[in-house]
Amino acid sequence: MLDALFKPKAVALIGASTKELSIGNVIIRNLQTYGYKGAIYPVNAKAAEVCGLKSYPSISAIPGEVDLAHIIIPSKFVPQAIEECGQKGVKAVIINSAGFSEMGEEGARLQKEFLANARKYGIRLFGPNCQGIINSDPELNAYCNFTFTFPKPGSISVVALSGGVGALIMQVLDDLDIGQRLYASNGNACDVSIPEIIEYYGEDEGTKAIILYTEGDKPREFLEITRKVTAKKPVLAMKAGRTEEGAKAASSHTGSLAGVDIATELIFEKIGVLPFHDEGEMVRAAMAFSSQPIPTGNRVGIITNTGGPAVIATDVLVDFGIEVPKLGEPSIARLRETQYPEAALENPIDVVATAGGPQFRAALDVLLDDEQIDCIYINFVTAPFTDTDEVAREIVAISRQRRKPLVCNFMTNLKLERYQKTMAILKAGEVPYYANPGDAARALGALVQYGRIQQRDIGSPQTFSGADPTTAKTIIEQARQAGREVLSAFEVYRIFEAYGIPVAPWRVVETTEQAVAAATEISYPVVVKVDCAEIDHKSDRGGVAINLKDAAAVRATVEEMQTRLGEYGKLGFLVQKFLPGGRELIIGASAERELGLLMFGLGGIYVEVLKDVVFKVAPVTRLEAEEMLAGIKTAALLDGVRGEAGIDKQAVIELIQRISQLLGDLPMIAEMDLNPIMAFADKAFAVDGRIRIQLEN
Amino acid sequence: MLDALFKPKAVALIGASTKELSIGNVIIRNLQTYGYKGAIYPVNAKAAEVCGLKSYPSISAIPGEVDLAHIIIPSKFVPQAIEECGQKGVKAVIINSAGFSEMGEEGARLQKEFLANARKYGIRLFGPNCQGIINSDPELNAYCNFTFTFPKPGSISVVALSGGVGALIMQVLDDLDIGQRLYASNGNACDVSIPEIIEYYGEDEGTKAIILYTEGDKPREFLEITRKVTAKKPVLAMKAGRTEEGAKAASSHTGSLAGVDIATELIFEKIGVLPFHDEGEMVRAAMAFSSQPIPTGNRVGIITNTGGPAVIATDVLVDFGIEVPKLGEPSIARLRETQYPEAALENPIDVVATAGGPQFRAALDVLLDDEQIDCIYINFVTAPFTDTDEVAREIVAISRQRRKPLVCNFMTNLKLERYQKTMAILKAGEVPYYANPGDAARALGALVQYGRIQQRDIGSPQTFSGADPTTAKTIIEQARQAGREVLSAFEVYRIFEAYGIPVAPWRVVETTEQAVAAATEISYPVVVKVDCAEIDHKSDRGGVAINLKDAAAVRATVEEMQTRLGEYGKLGFLVQKFLPGGRELIIGASAERELGLLMFGLGGIYVEVLKDVVFKVAPVTRLEAEEMLAGIKTAALLDGVRGEAGIDKQAVIELIQRISQLLGDLPMIAEMDLNPIMAFADKAFAVDGRIRIQLEN
Repeated sequence: MLDALFKPKAVALIGASTKELSIGNVIIRNLQTYGYKGAIYPVNAKAAEVCGLKSYPSISAIPGEVDLAHIIIPSKFVPQAIEECGQKGVKAVIINSAGFSEMGEEGARLQKEFLANARKYGIRLFGPNCQGIINSDPELNAYCNFTFTFPKPGSISVVALSGGVGALIMQVLDDLDIGQRLYASNGNACDVSIPEIIEYYGEDEGTKAIILYTEGDKPREFLEITRKVTAKKPVLAMKAGRTEEGAKAASSHTGSLAGVDIATELIFEKIGVLPFHDEGEMVRAAMAFSSQPIPTGNRVGIITNTGGPAVIATDVLVDFGIEVPKLGEPSIARLRETQYPEAALENPIDVVATAGGPQFRAALDVLLDDEQIDCIYINFVTAPFTDTDEVAREIVAISRQRRKPLVCNFMTNLKLERYQKTMAILKAGEVPYYANPGDAARALGALVQYGRIQQRDIGSPQTFSGADPTTAKTIIEQARQAGREVLSAFEVYRIFEAYGIPVAPWRVVETTEQAVAAATEISYPVVVKVDCAEIDHKSDRGGVAINLKDAAAVRATVEEMQTRLGEYGKLGFLVQKFLPGGRELIIGASAERELGLLMFGLGGIYVEVLKDVVFKVAPVTRLEAEEMLAGIKTAALLDGVRGEAGIDKQAVIELIQRISQLLGDLPMIAEMDLNPIMAFADKAFAVDGRIRIQLEN
Repeated sequence: MLDALFKPKAVALIGASTKELSIGNVIIRNLQTYGYKGAIYPVNAKAAEVCGLKSYPSISAIPGEVDLAHIIIPSKFVPQAIEECGQKGVKAVIINSAGFSEMGEEGARLQKEFLANARKYGIRLFGPNCQGIINSDPELNAYCNFTFTFPKPGSISVVALSGGVGALIMQVLDDLDIGQRLYASNGNACDVSIPEIIEYYGEDEGTKAIILYTEGDKPREFLEITRKVTAKKPVLAMKAGRTEEGAKAASSHTGSLAGVDIATELIFEKIGVLPFHDEGEMVRAAMAFSSQPIPTGNRVGIITNTGGPAVIATDVLVDFGIEVPKLGEPSIARLRETQYPEAALENPIDVVATAGGPQFRAALDVLLDDEQIDCIYINFVTAPFTDTDEVAREIVAISRQRRKPLVCNFMTNLKLERYQKTMAILKAGEVPYYANPGDAARALGALVQYGRIQQRDIGSPQTFSGADPTTAKTIIEQARQAGREVLSAFEVYRIFEAYGIPVAPWRVVETTEQAVAAATEISYPVVVKVDCAEIDHKSDRGGVAINLKDAAAVRATVEEMQTRLGEYGKLGFLVQKFLPGGRELIIGASAERELGLLMFGLGGIYVEVLKDVVFKVAPVTRLEAEEMLAGIKTAALLDGVRGEAGIDKQAVIELIQRISQLLGDLPMIAEMDLNPIMAFADKAFAVDGRIRIQLEN
């Protein structure tokens, strides 16, 4: 648990400073300004006091207990300082100092040293090269950070590796007057990790929603921990560097299509993290989460007192897959009784500019009672001829009932005092209000999106009995020992068969006569391929001949290839059943850092030109495999178009799951392609495959 | 010209009111509050004065000249009021009153009546059912409107049909403290139109950029007028109702793919209007346009004093197609001399948190001088240990040079007075500054986008000599007289040939023997199709047989079809050269309100499943035709993939232009499909076509 870090009873500052703009001074003043309830102990041997507080020559000289210490001294002194913290019984340390692993070898050595000291005493380390934490709990008011925004208490907690973005998020929340709960920015993150902090926020009762800015580190830990948190509360996240050229050299299909780090956003999708590409939009969505219930469906009722902005809102809501159903006659009848004659009574409900509190209230009540409506969007322009305060009070009253979530687009001129008052009513009533329709609609869109996430259960990955990891591992181990990164067709097919992955009947042969015998055994027509790991794209090199209908054709083909391909031709051939008329599919898999990625698409130009593929993080459940098939743009082709038969989707869905199991059992696989898979109305077969393994662990 | 409307010397208010919250009172107070320099004449027979001004019993009783009058009286009195305005010599009238064409027959009759009166006297009418206009010119201060935002003078002009959205835009601009020039919201727009207002703004010297919210009315007028304005100044626009189900029943390919009104956004693209889907983003972009020069290229230099936000900005800038080039050695050398040792000197330039004015200034100077850089993005977080005012002053100094456009993401806590002061420096210096990196980057993105528009010249549509509109018109006229909406194959091919559109050789025949003779003449293989307008999808009905290799096959096919298709089979057949192995393309055209739309795509599943098509508004120039070919997702297929030959793109580009010319000459064509066109490495032929005409003009 990270209580010593987030709920410190006493904070020591090793490197407290009397210089006004130094970090060792700013943190103390921040603690004081924020009204920290615990004891503050400056440690500075040269000063008698710092910021009006008695200063101590060393941490051991502090009389009381200290659970949290800041370290703000040159890097070379840090290991010793940690040692002293350990002796003093400090439980957590925030190392604000820089100059460690980011600064080359000497820094890395120092980091290793202080980490060892910390482990010896069981100290948890935060940072180094970091800002720190904030806990706005009025019982504590811990501002262990050198930033300059003083958040008011609230229910949004923020975690960001980047201090710059963390501070920005905190500031934008504060500009919108949104309360915050916990804040953490952990810089180099040598010990306490982002996933751990998310876990802590997940257990914190005061936190209703979590904002995350991540660079995608520790993906496996992040996946496992965060998936438990998203089931309880929303995690709103942004990933840094969406467009950055990844370091990864992309050699296989999977790699070249994946390009930049797509794993993090795929994890978001898998575990139900709400992804954002705009920090403003993320923070405005958090405002709605901080006070509103989660919608149980995607049908919105719109109330507006002005025309055009309702059109803009509708466009945006529809972009989020939200429906704007026509109201039924009972609701319309109730509206007819309560609204002005010129009002529009369907959906959007245009209460017209002259609508006052009673008209807004009546329309809100109708939407609350209407079972066709899951959430409410309000356009509220402060028309000069109405009592806008009364309207605001009615919106607050409905919002307080917490029966259905609502957001309010509040269009006004805040230079006028009377509208400042109206706004204050909305604010005090915790109504999420925004300055334009798009912003309000996107915030409601995020609520609906999280509602969907809560209702989505991807299930558990299936384990197919009869899978034979031992055989597969033995094959891979032999290739490893032979120093071969790319497996032979024989090895690949054996591994597929060990996992029940259907492969078109095949034989490996070396001579012409063996080829003919194999073809006869398999039955014509057959395909002949050169079996050579070095020729990755066999067909480009003329190493594949399809639809050979008799022994003569097989014999001629093998002889021709032996001659033309020289050395390669001597390595052997694969004779395989030719299956005409199916639909070409491709399934790829690759190990991305700590994760396995699976890819599905149609083969040929669909993958090469259209890049029409779907990725998922392994292990893939049945539902996720279904989503992969449904997720390609050309999904209609799987069902058959223009009178063609569709393919056996169930077979492909099972195939994907079997590959997922294989990938989980065999982490030494770096890349794998099943390309193509031939799918028919009643079956699906891999007809070519490729596996590249990691030679080192 | 609309000077009487936008620069009135005297304003009369017919329907002036002593009731405080009424429109006839609010407008007078708005004129007074805003400091209108002209005369204000309330017209109200029952009051001696209104808002402290002498009131007149009628407009004729006003002693001085009146060029603009508001009318705010019940609709039935409006025609008479216009008559009186005419007699008085009023030049423009804003009809705020509602109750006309939007209210059924009687309202429409009144509107017709007052329009006739207005025309009699040459009065220009604004509205009815509208807000009015604002002119912020300090020499005039005309606030002829009942809204509640008082914009400061500036260079952004706004026009919006919807008063609600117009007021919203004005408010959001004002919240950002952006000056405005002219404002107009013209409601029902019975006379003065949106395009006319855009034209007026285009000629107004004080207007640097135009914001438009449109519902897409008068597309032809809009296109012709606005294209001239966008060449001079940026027009930033939003279209209402992007997702609305259009009324149009979609029967042809073109129609069903177009769906909702896509014409307006296509016009935006054609004439260089900057399209927005978010009103906040549009207004923030306008802020940058109001003070910055237009970039001449798309290469950005980024200066940042914090890490993470530069990553976010880079992501967004890259989304806009902006490049972030590495700086060359000369620039890096200059930076090395001026920046702190821990600074990052490539691009983004991280001047680090401790950077003050000199560091920012030096980095800015380097980017100004570097010919590889076209525009500048700045992240400026107000680090507590620096003189932020000095940084702001340096940014202002560079911005004032107007050498390269810049935007600033200014991250600060405005609750602190010292940072309010820093912000005031940026504001007074007209630096476009934003509260987060995404917003700033998108504003710069809009500048770069407009720079591209200014440099793009789509050229003029080509007129192919030899086109024979007379023949085509005669064919259509005959079909019209026969009451046939859908032309026969014979008619369609004749029209194509009249415009030099290549068609695979064809004959129309009625009997088996004629079919065999035609096939022999054309040479085998041939296609036989039933020639029947009623069978739209001939192939679905078994009315098409391809690749018939000899007379026996032709004879058998025709006889079989005659038997099976009954009545349809008696209508005749088309015998056509069969051209195997080409790539199927589709070109469609349709008349959308006043415009012609052209569509291009690959045929078959590409159009049916992938909906991979590009639309353009006719007439299409050579460059636009090229853009259509390059614009489909599967464009690579046109160049050939996997060893296939590409198609003759020049032939298809010419074909599109010929169809565009045809469409311009023959506006009675409602829909036209060339589906498929077979394209080969050296030619392209239409092999089937369909034309539906309008029976009435």
